[in-house]
Parts: sequence; structure tokens; C-alpha cells
Amino acid sequence: MALVEYADAALEVRAVFDDIKAARGVPDVNNFWKALAVHPPTLKRTWESLKQVMAPGALDPLTKEMLYLAASAAAGCAYCTASHTAAARAKGMTDAMHGELLAVLGMAAETNRLAEALRVPIDQGL
Amino acid sequence: MALVEYADAALEVRAVFDDIKAARGVPDVNNFWKALAVHPPTLKRTWESLKQVMAPGALDPLTKEMLYLAASAAAGCAYCTASHTAAARAKGMTDAMHGELLAVLGMAAETNRLAEALRVPIDQGL
Amino acid sequence: MALVEYADAALEVRAVFDDIKAARGVPDVNNFWKALAVHPPTLKRTWESLKQVMAPGALDPLTKEMLYLAASAAAGCAYCTASHTAAARAKGMTDAMHGELLAVLGMAAETNRLAEALRVPIDQGL
Amino acid sequence: MALVEYADAALEVRAVFDDIKAARGVPDVNNFWKALAVHPPTLKRTWESLKQVMAPGALDPLTKEMLYLAASAAAGCAYCTASHTAAARAKGMTDAMHGELLAVLGMAAETNRLAEALRVPIDQGL
Amino acid sequence: MALVEYADAALEVRAVFDDIKAARGVPDVNNFWKALAVHPPTLKRTWESLKQVMAPGALDPLTKEMLYLAASAAAGCAYCTASHTAAARAKGMTDAMHGELLAVLGMAAETNRLAEALRVPIDQGL
Amino acid sequence: MALVEYADAALEVRAVFDDIKAARGVPDVNNFWKALAVHPPTLKRTWESLKQVMAPGALDPLTKEMLYLAASAAAGCAYCTASHTAAARAKGMTDAMHGELLAVLGMAAETNRLAEALRVPIDQGL
Repeated sequence: MALVEYADAALEVRAVFDDIKAARGVPDVNNFWKALAVHPPTLKRTWESLKQVMAPGALDPLTKEMLYLAASAAAGCAYCTASHTAAARAKGMTDAMHGELLAVLGMAAETNRLAEALRVPIDQGL
Repeated sequence: MALVEYADAALEVRAVFDDIKAARGVPDVNNFWKALAVHPPTLKRTWESLKQVMAPGALDPLTKEMLYLAASAAAGCAYCTASHTAAARAKGMTDAMHGELLAVLGMAAETNRLAEALRVPIDQGL
Repeated sequence: MALVEYADAALEVRAVFDDIKAARGVPDVNNFWKALAVHPPTLKRTWESLKQVMAPGALDPLTKEMLYLAASAAAGCAYCTASHTAAARAKGMTDAMHGELLAVLGMAAETNRLAEALRVPIDQGL
Repeated sequence: MALVEYADAALEVRAVFDDIKAARGVPDVNNFWKALAVHPPTLKRTWESLKQVMAPGALDPLTKEMLYLAASAAAGCAYCTASHTAAARAKGMTDAMHGELLAVLGMAAETNRLAEALRVPIDQGL
Repeated sequence: MALVEYADAALEVRAVFDDIKAARGVPDVNNFWKALAVHPPTLKRTWESLKQVMAPGALDPLTKEMLYLAASAAAGCAYCTASHTAAARAKGMTDAMHGELLAVLGMAAETNRLAEALRVPIDQGL
Repeated sequence: MALVEYADAALEVRAVFDDIKAARGVPDVNNFWKALAVHPPTLKRTWESLKQVMAPGALDPLTKEMLYLAASAAAGCAYCTASHTAAARAKGMTDAMHGELLAVLGMAAETNRLAEALRVPIDQGL
């Protein structure tokens, strides 16, 4: 799949790339955005949504990033696992926190599988 | 699938049930444990592992519980989603926090899928 | 989704139902086949394939059925987990065997997740 | 993700590596364990659990290994599929057995998907 | 999980519900939207995105809806499979088209699984 | 995993390869078929099924191919995503159509996840 570099990008794509770079204080955007640029409306919509969702709120940015990582690893997306591990580290995830996150992920996978294999009925009141 | 009630349980199963009830301060264990009791060694090992993994550490109990919920929802386990949503609420997850967690989950699912459908190469240095 | 009963079925559907009943020695087919009958070519092709795949060969019928159950539970299909648990029991899976199968399933889920979350490189020579 | 080699490992990690090497009669541990060593408690707990789960019991070691492979392939874990295919071969899985296992996996995937797409209700009595 | 009915909804939620009802010409919104209303920003963002994505373009509405159904069934979401099957039928999917879609879904599941279990290398030039 | 080349293939494998090449007008078969050739009965059955399923019917070949791609991407199969993207392009999928397909896939992933995380009850009448 082609990656669209800034120099070759249409104006509407450059505008999104510029916004990502400014928001994150980085000199270039990740491959994800360069790949998504093959469809400018999806690039723009996805970035606008991500900005809104990841803004600080009731949950702090590190917690949101670790949740993103947990969901990405659970979905088995290698690219997403790599990029959100890096993002979480940049936001303050230590080795110890990462280790515990991995332990939770592994445990969740095991109990998820057991609950489904046993077809456990949902507890009353939930 | 049969659920093993305390009154009908073997001694080794009762010992695990007693430990769960004491650790959580609840009068009865969830259906998950009653279902798992069909295989006592798996019941005991799973509970011992869960206790170790979910103990407070570099991550606080609420963060661990929300990560567990994120992984369970991403894996599509309805039972686990229901029980860990309840557990996270019991540990302090507010409506606003839950809403933001849902938003992160949805966004992660979308970008995970796009990254895989576009086969985005992992960024250099990650 | 509608289930097609024998009495209401077209001749080509009845022929498949008859073959399933004869091969399995059962008075009626499972809901899966009644649901699949909404598309007779898929009903016929799926049954012919299943018959071929599940025939005794280098693996015995019980091992095949437990592999089918393991794959179905790992894929999170509740219907399939229910029906292949019953089929494996009918072919000789004891409580102890079922318990160990569950333990393997849970362990596989945990290590699968950890291997993906850590992006472990495949060992040389494999 | 960094792999922890024996020479650079802490004592608690070396102890687990030594136990794996002794149990399996191999000169070095697989990358999975080297990767997991970034979090020693998870390394230790995972190995202890795996040893318990994979010990011979009501199911023989080859059957357990093939179930592990089936679950890993169904979960789409490339690393796990590679390593458990090799492990199953080492325990006696022939080409013919592997071929039939693949056929069951493919058939299960197809019927799992059809059962879910048709939302087939679970048969009475199951 | 609570469903938010129009009568009990906040103004910002009612505005989205009104827009959905107008766009679709229906007297009430589906449960999905009532559930999503627990987090109004996610409700609004999701609806705005969906409207944009499902608008006619290079692909016609029926094709988009069938692709949505295929992705939902492949992801194993029962609610989504039910609602997008109904939506596709409303947009013109006949029994024959549905049957062929199911056949493609089943075949894709089987070959996806086989390709992953065999770790097939991507063909040169792709 | 070994790929079986035509020159090294048994007669029953060559017969399938010949049929694939003739049906598709290509000089060689894809890696998928070369990998599947390790189990000739599965190779033959899979090809016969695929031929039947992908034949023109109530759905045209391009629509079937895009549905195959949507299901493969939703299942996270990298090989399948690559090969069916190429196949869909060969059958007429333009950049604009591909972009819209990606947008639908991403949106479906997001709403699938939200519906499951919220455990939305299926709407009455569906």
C-alpha cells in the first residue's frame, strides 16, 4: 500500500498533516496517516475524531493511551500495538506500568476465553 | 453448562470460593467461578493468578479494572464486559469516565481496522 | 432468522437433511442446518465438505471434534461452542478431558495475547 | 520489543529460564520467554501455569499441543502458530495429521462464521 | 445497559435523534442510538461520521450496506449482524443475494484461517 | 511453511493448479494454493468450493470480491487483505471505491465495538 508523503500530497491532505504535526509537536506524521491519505475524507474525519476522543477529560491522557493500547493489543493489530506502546511511553508509562498492563491483558484474554467456552450466564442484576 | 453452587461443591472448590468471598467482601461468588468449578485445578490456578495480577502495583486498581474492561470489550466477550463494567463502577468509574472509555474503544477499533486493511508498515524506530 | 423445517423444505434441502440424519443416526437435524437451508447451495456444499473433513483419517473422530471445539471457542462462537461440546461428549470426551481442554484454551488465549502485545519475533528456523 | 538474553538476565529470570531449559531439554529458551522477561512476575507466573496445564493428564501431550495450535491459529497469532506447529511436530504430529488439523480449522472457521451470520439459536437441551 | 428514550433525553441527544429520524424516515431510532446516548459526544460524533460514510458515492447504498454487514458478521457482532441484515434487505438485498453473501462470508472465513494457519507469505508485487 | 511448486507437485496437485491457472488466465498460482498443496484433499476441496462460491450469480463478481475483502480485513488476515485488494482492483475497484470501502470497514469496526461494549439488545422485530 502506498504511503503519501507531504511533498506529494494534495492541499487537503497537507492541511491535516500540518494539524497533526502542530498538535503533537512532531516533524512528520506516522505511517498510519500517510497510508490513510489515499482517501482524504477518511483521513480528515479520522483525525478530527481522534483529536476529540483523546483530548483530556474525565480520564487523563496516559490512561486513555493505555486503554487504546489494551484495545489494540486485544484486537491483535501489530501496527497499533507498536505505535500506542510508544505513545503511552511518551506520556509516562514506565516499565513497571507496562509490565502490569501486559499482565492484565494476558489475564483478560484467559478469562474471556474461559467465560465464552463455558457460556457463563451473565450474573443477575448486571 | 452447569454452575456449581457452594452447597454442592467439593472441599477444594469451597476453599477457593471462601477465599474469593473474603478477598472481595461478597456473600457469594460470580457465575464465572461457579462455572469454572467444573475443573477445580483451573478454578484454583485462575483465581490465584487473578489475585496476583489485579493487586495494586504501579497501576491503581481502577486503572487495572478499566484496562481489563477495554480488553474484554475488544475481545467481544459479553459476560466479561458486563462483569468488568460493574467492577469498574464499583471501583469508582463514573458515567463520564465510562463514556470516554467507550469513545476510546470505538476509536481504537476503527483505527485498528484501517491500519490492518491498509497494511501500514510499522514506523522506523518502533 | 427463519429455520427451515423438513415439512416445509424443498426437495434439494430434504435430500441433504436426509443424508445428515442417516449419517448421524438422529431423528432431526440441528438448527444450524435448518438455518443454512435458506441458501440450498451453501447447505449442500457445507454438508458435503463437513462430511469429508470429519471422516476418520490420521486423526480419530474425538480428536477432530475437540479440535473443532477448540477452534470454535477461540473464535467466540456461542452456538458452535455449545454444539461441538455436545458432539465431543457424545464421542467420548469425559469431564476430565473437557476440563483439560478448557485449561489449554485459556492458557493459549493468554500466551497468544502476550506474544502479540510484545510483538515477539518468530524464532529462527521456524 | 527487547529480548532479554540469559547473560543479561536478573537472577529471578535466570531461574525461570533454567527451569524451562531443564523441563524441555533445550539449550536456550524461545523468544517468547525472552520477551516476557521484561516483567519477571508475569514470566514466572506464565511458565508455572503452562507447566501445570500442559502436563500429561486425561489428554496426552500431543493432543494438548494440537489443541493449543488450533486455538492459536483460530486467534490469528502468527508467532504462536509457528511455535506450536513446531512443538506439535516434535511431539509426533505427522504431515497427514497436520493436514487434517488444517482442514478442521478451516471448516470450523467457515461454519462458525455462518452460524454467527445467521444468528442460529442454540438447540434445545444444549 | 440503560436505553435512553426520547422523552427522557437531554436536548443535545434529542437533536441527534431528530436528525436520525428525519434522515431515515423512521418514527423512532434503533436501540444502538438509545444506548449510545449515555455519552452524548460519542452519540453525536458517531452519527455524523456514519452519515458521511454511508452517503452515496463511488459505491451505491446497497453495496455499502452489504459491506457493512460482511464486516459486522466477520467481527461476530450479533446486534450489528441483525440490524445490518435488516438494513440491507430494506435497501434491496434479495434472498438470493443474501445467500450468496453468506457463502462468500463462510468461504472467506475458511481461507482466512487457512492462510494464517499456514503463514502464507504475501505474493511478490502485492 | 513450505510452498509446493508445480515442478515438484504430485499429479493430483498439478491438476488443481492447472484448473486454477485456466480459470484465471494466469501463468502461476498464488502462494496460498502452493501452501495449501501440503494437504491435497484440502487444496482440491477449497478450490472447488471457491469456484462455486465466486461464480457470478445474484451478486456480480466485483461485489463478491469486495465482500471477500471486507470480511478478510475484518478478520485481520494480512495475506488475504493483500490478495483480495489486488483481486478487487483487477475486477474494477477504483481508488474512490477502495477509499469508501475502507471508510465503511472503519465505521463498522467502531460501531460493532460500541454495540458490544454497551451490550445493546437486538431491536424488536429483527
